[in-house]
Amino acid sequence: MRMVDIIHNKRQGGELSKEEIKFYLDGLVNGDIPDYQVSALLMAIYFNGMTDEEQTNLTLGMVKSGDHLDLSAIPGIKVDKHSTGGVGDKVSLPLAALVASAGISIPMISGRGLGHTGGTLDKLEAIPGYKVEISEEDFIKQVSKEKLAIIGATANIAPADKKIYALRDVTDTVDSIPLIASSIMSKKIASGTDALVLDIKTGTGAFMKTLDQATALAEALVAIGKHAGVKTMAIISDMNQPLGNKIGNSLEIEESIDLLKGKGPKDLEELTLEIAAYMLIFGEKATTIEEAKAILKENIANGSALDRFKAMIIAQGGDGNVIEDYSIMPQAAYQIPYKAKASGVISKMTADEVGVASMLLGGGRQKAEDKLDYAVGIELYKKVGDSVNEGDDVLMIYSNREDVSDVVALLDQSIEIGEKAEEYQMIYKIVE
Amino acid sequence: MRMVDIIHNKRQGGELSKEEIKFYLDGLVNGDIPDYQVSALLMAIYFNGMTDEEQTNLTLGMVKSGDHLDLSAIPGIKVDKHSTGGVGDKVSLPLAALVASAGISIPMISGRGLGHTGGTLDKLEAIPGYKVEISEEDFIKQVSKEKLAIIGATANIAPADKKIYALRDVTDTVDSIPLIASSIMSKKIASGTDALVLDIKTGTGAFMKTLDQATALAEALVAIGKHAGVKTMAIISDMNQPLGNKIGNSLEIEESIDLLKGKGPKDLEELTLEIAAYMLIFGEKATTIEEAKAILKENIANGSALDRFKAMIIAQGGDGNVIEDYSIMPQAAYQIPYKAKASGVISKMTADEVGVASMLLGGGRQKAEDKLDYAVGIELYKKVGDSVNEGDDVLMIYSNREDVSDVVALLDQSIEIGEKAEEYQMIYKIVE
Repeated sequence: MRMVDIIHNKRQGGELSKEEIKFYLDGLVNGDIPDYQVSALLMAIYFNGMTDEEQTNLTLGMVKSGDHLDLSAIPGIKVDKHSTGGVGDKVSLPLAALVASAGISIPMISGRGLGHTGGTLDKLEAIPGYKVEISEEDFIKQVSKEKLAIIGATANIAPADKKIYALRDVTDTVDSIPLIASSIMSKKIASGTDALVLDIKTGTGAFMKTLDQATALAEALVAIGKHAGVKTMAIISDMNQPLGNKIGNSLEIEESIDLLKGKGPKDLEELTLEIAAYMLIFGEKATTIEEAKAILKENIANGSALDRFKAMIIAQGGDGNVIEDYSIMPQAAYQIPYKAKASGVISKMTADEVGVASMLLGGGRQKAEDKLDYAVGIELYKKVGDSVNEGDDVLMIYSNREDVSDVVALLDQSIEIGEKAEEYQMIYKIVE
Repeated sequence: MRMVDIIHNKRQGGELSKEEIKFYLDGLVNGDIPDYQVSALLMAIYFNGMTDEEQTNLTLGMVKSGDHLDLSAIPGIKVDKHSTGGVGDKVSLPLAALVASAGISIPMISGRGLGHTGGTLDKLEAIPGYKVEISEEDFIKQVSKEKLAIIGATANIAPADKKIYALRDVTDTVDSIPLIASSIMSKKIASGTDALVLDIKTGTGAFMKTLDQATALAEALVAIGKHAGVKTMAIISDMNQPLGNKIGNSLEIEESIDLLKGKGPKDLEELTLEIAAYMLIFGEKATTIEEAKAILKENIANGSALDRFKAMIIAQGGDGNVIEDYSIMPQAAYQIPYKAKASGVISKMTADEVGVASMLLGGGRQKAEDKLDYAVGIELYKKVGDSVNEGDDVLMIYSNREDVSDVVALLDQSIEIGEKAEEYQMIYKIVE
């Protein structure tokens, strides 16, 4: 078998066999196939796509390139969640606690963020003492005892994906649905889950700008999951504006705890409950969405979801007092309001620019080695559709520097005040 | 400027600016741009093509990446020829002598062959003593004095093309018209010619299988030539069967000299005269094809074309006696006839397989470092459309080994005898 023939097959629109995909991934990982052939194949895949069978073989091949976590020691059905990411998306935090409170084991392996705000792990590290690097053995023990854990990767998960991902970034082959889908699914399958609920973002602040694109990605992900024997469904949700009201690391922990206290913003609560409800169905704790949501709302009301969150924090070395006292997390030196420039209705608040504004404050990374400032971020007082008068506070900037003119300039681009606003739904579509 | 943005532009179907092409070629040559980005761009060009302006900028950029020969010391208009290559294609040899005999300077820089039979330089080396590596100074002196020289590249011609060509071969981006066209034209323009006649092969034995593909390539080449200020036209000619009757190195020298003696095969003579006639028009030695052909035929009849060929051989150190005595070239130990398996009409004789048969005998290279056997090859007694009786000699195998069963097996695949044959034209089309 020769790599050039595999490239030719895909370039001509053919379907790669399981053997061809194995040859490619083996050669990629052991270095026998040079990067210039890998990138030529990636571009051919960008143009000619992949069938469900190819995507599945690619995904399972990437899983096999590294370790496959064995979670069989944890009793019951393991259910995981993945989001394609967006500004203000802290869903994983309250979600893990909510679903665990319903008796489902949540062994969640998360990542750090690059760009925008931090990732789930970064946010958790805003809690004093919280450790994300724990052994596989302790991870399994914690999930068995407390029903949940959120940690960084413990093992050599899908190294083929890591190498391909790095090449995609520099060869303009990032936005290819088979490549995105196989990358996501390989990591999730290697992490040993039995079922998976996907949150696919769409809108101006999402990678998938249109509902059609988001649907195509959702369908690819669900098809791979089904072929690979992992129960999978996807929710397509809005990312035309930030999710929830708080963006930043400490700020997003606050909002997550608020949600578990029944005081979360409506949009964040709606999406979190929807995802959690599907996880309850996969975990066989409910048979309908209505039934599942009733259980979840009860577990917010009776404090058992919040209790799971606190238990996880303590189990992972964090200070459980954060539940009652947010001020034990890093706090920003300056609070600078951003005021409405006119009277009217907020007609636009693009998520991307708000995210970059938070990154500029120090809340996100521009380079992988950047250190985060957990204290900084943005709190939205108004969102799209809300009325404002000129001079009203639209949002608060939490900063550790006094001059935030660069941040304000970005927000000026993000926020528009007009006569009326488009109405965004929180959830557009279910793909299963 | 970032290479990933240039890849993106082409991937999205955009037109690369002159500055983007310069950035790409500079980075390619000095090593700033890694091969994996180059190959991603090549694949994007394969899918999305290039405009005439892009192709011209790419070509001229590749010319600038190396030396540009200055032939201004040679008086008159310099006219060159390029063929996309095929089995039995020895046109350059008699052509150079014919055109020189009409008073046009022919400073021809040729290459060696890979696969099939040898290249023009390999064939000339079948003549004892012939040197293809001579200095640029001696090259210019010889052309000024004798009107012609056929040599290997003396200078660092289009190094960007060399690097791109090597990558195309292993990334399945060889058959892209803008990449083929810019590669051919960059080398020809860097070689300092004023005008160029292209011979584009089409048919089963050609890279461009269909007339449409050949026309597209011809149009791209002519467009680049015109944009770059080099008079350029193209002839599209047949490669459904080998050109002429002899395939092999010594054998092709014989047939070239035969042609200059007025004893060449008709198909080879027709094509050689057609190309030569256009070169005479570009060189302002004739105003019509008919006038040009009359001059050329006269120069065959009066021996002046043959005289130019002999003068070139002697000037480059070769033994001029070869003109009268072919046996001074290496001769094969065995002559093994290949006989018709049935009675009827030769309906197929695919050039590729005849070429590979000659290569297996030792007449062509499988790897760049293979040493050639100048003596071996194939002489066709019958071509497509000729009648044969079972047991007639169809061709003669010239070999230095007794067992040629592998060669015979290939010829069995190449040659079909049926009831009637398709009629091939020698010349299909002129593109100018």
